[in-house]
Amino acid sequence: MIKDDCIFCKLANGIFDTNTVYEDENFRVILDIAPAAKGHCLVLPKKHFENALVADEDTLGKGMILAAKIGKKVKEAYGCDGINIVQNNGEAAGQTVFHLHIHVIPRYNDDTVKFEYDSLELKDEDFKEALTKLK
Amino acid sequence: MIKDDCIFCKLANGIFDTNTVYEDENFRVILDIAPAAKGHCLVLPKKHFENALVADEDTLGKGMILAAKIGKKVKEAYGCDGINIVQNNGEAAGQTVFHLHIHVIPRYNDDTVKFEYDSLELKDEDFKEALTKLK
Repeated sequence: MIKDDCIFCKLANGIFDTNTVYEDENFRVILDIAPAAKGHCLVLPKKHFENALVADEDTLGKGMILAAKIGKKVKEAYGCDGINIVQNNGEAAGQTVFHLHIHVIPRYNDDTVKFEYDSLELKDEDFKEALTKLK
Repeated sequence: MIKDDCIFCKLANGIFDTNTVYEDENFRVILDIAPAAKGHCLVLPKKHFENALVADEDTLGKGMILAAKIGKKVKEAYGCDGINIVQNNGEAAGQTVFHLHIHVIPRYNDDTVKFEYDSLELKDEDFKEALTKLK
């Protein structure tokens, strides 16, 4: 259940001390130590999964419900303008600790958080190809 | 259930045509029309909620399970290096259509997607304040 060399296993299961915002049988919600804004939280399952693509459904479902609940709480507590719920899978996606976690990030109209990309302009054939690949 | 002036209600419920990757009783998964990369999908509940902070638990839980399933499928189909699962709440958080949706974004080691912020350096008192506000 706990992976020996996993820092988030140790934080989630109380082996290492951390700033706990919420805890239940399956999850611990902690404060991110390098936050985008005050109130930036991480939802950590106590059970080890590398990421969402290999996690069990129970953990994914309960994790998202909890992330939304924390998001609501953070918005009320800090009066921020918005909330991002972000879950990264793989280094290319910005994942740095390889234990499933969900970011709950307070956002402000004038903040410095950037989430940007150049949109592709797809042709009909691209859409058709995608449907063939993904259906 | 369907909000008259909501484009995502109309797409999710098949009132407007769209590129459907997956459909069940509660959700439709469509191709984003201005994607970050080929295979960028949106998970749309058929029921209208403005965002995750006001959605019901059943929709949040099932939505995340479905997003992870789609992420796995997209990764297999496109051979991308990672996947972001992103859910934005409020204009300040980058939400542009006010019907709950979850982005499933294929990521590559050399792509142009930016998700960046200047991390705050918090003091002990900031952590304490956060715990008081959020517990």
